[in-house]
Amino acid sequence: MATATTSVSVQTADDLLKHWQGHRRLTRRTIEAFPEDKLFQFSVGGMRPFAEMALEFIRMAVPIVEGVATGKWGDINAAKGSQPTTKTDLLRLWDAQTKELDEKFPQIPAHRFSEIDKVFDQWEQPGIVTLQYAIDNEIHHRGQGYVYLRALGIEPPHFWERD
Amino acid sequence: MATATTSVSVQTADDLLKHWQGHRRLTRRTIEAFPEDKLFQFSVGGMRPFAEMALEFIRMAVPIVEGVATGKWGDINAAKGSQPTTKTDLLRLWDAQTKELDEKFPQIPAHRFSEIDKVFDQWEQPGIVTLQYAIDNEIHHRGQGYVYLRALGIEPPHFWERD
Repeated sequence: MATATTSVSVQTADDLLKHWQGHRRLTRRTIEAFPEDKLFQFSVGGMRPFAEMALEFIRMAVPIVEGVATGKWGDINAAKGSQPTTKTDLLRLWDAQTKELDEKFPQIPAHRFSEIDKVFDQWEQPGIVTLQYAIDNEIHHRGQGYVYLRALGIEPPHFWERD
Repeated sequence: MATATTSVSVQTADDLLKHWQGHRRLTRRTIEAFPEDKLFQFSVGGMRPFAEMALEFIRMAVPIVEGVATGKWGDINAAKGSQPTTKTDLLRLWDAQTKELDEKFPQIPAHRFSEIDKVFDQWEQPGIVTLQYAIDNEIHHRGQGYVYLRALGIEPPHFWERD
């Protein structure tokens, strides 16, 4: 009979970054799958178009990694002024952030994953919870983008492909 | 200047189970939010009704935990015969699985999280990747359920509430 092993580590910071970047590659393919006009205008049930969801991911990802790394939390809506209006510009922003995440994430000091911050003046939680939230939020809304694509008669990318 | 800390553990098995059960509570509230007939019949874009997605989560969760714990992988579609046809029965099955997960997950031997299996005769990957996939898949399809609810004019549960 195996003993309970609840305190075993199942994920390192490096695993988490790789897992996130895998999801981000899938999100990038989801953005690409939309026709340009639908990306910025189409939605179901009065929800946001997928471009706005993708911009939310962009507004969260690097600012959250910087916040967890440094303990300094700016205004999550600060970057709202400079929104891209084409798929090309959105993907360019996406790719720039991919590089930035790869650079900044490994600089998060070990103790900061468990340290509790007041995040964006709203949520009091450890760094790891905030990072996980950013990833879960991306999966959640990307799933909604899949419904938009299906409603448009477009086959979404395979959920299980992350390369 | 902080040194890179990529090998730091950011999640224990116990954290992962708690995170999953938090998501499962949110999924339960999403099931509850559907009117009974819509749960089993309504969809957008030719996709599956939300009850079928919830049944997929149920067919994956405990069998995956058992597979990761033991290395024995049955047929993922074996349980398809006994599908519930009411919201009450679906929630009863959900709650039974909540208890079962709490009992079985802590029995996963430490080394099994990194051991590679051929899962359900399809995917070759470490135990942790399979567990993470089950959770991500639930978040992904639950997000789709949110679109169904919005299309029905129903406010979905708050994504950030996991209690």
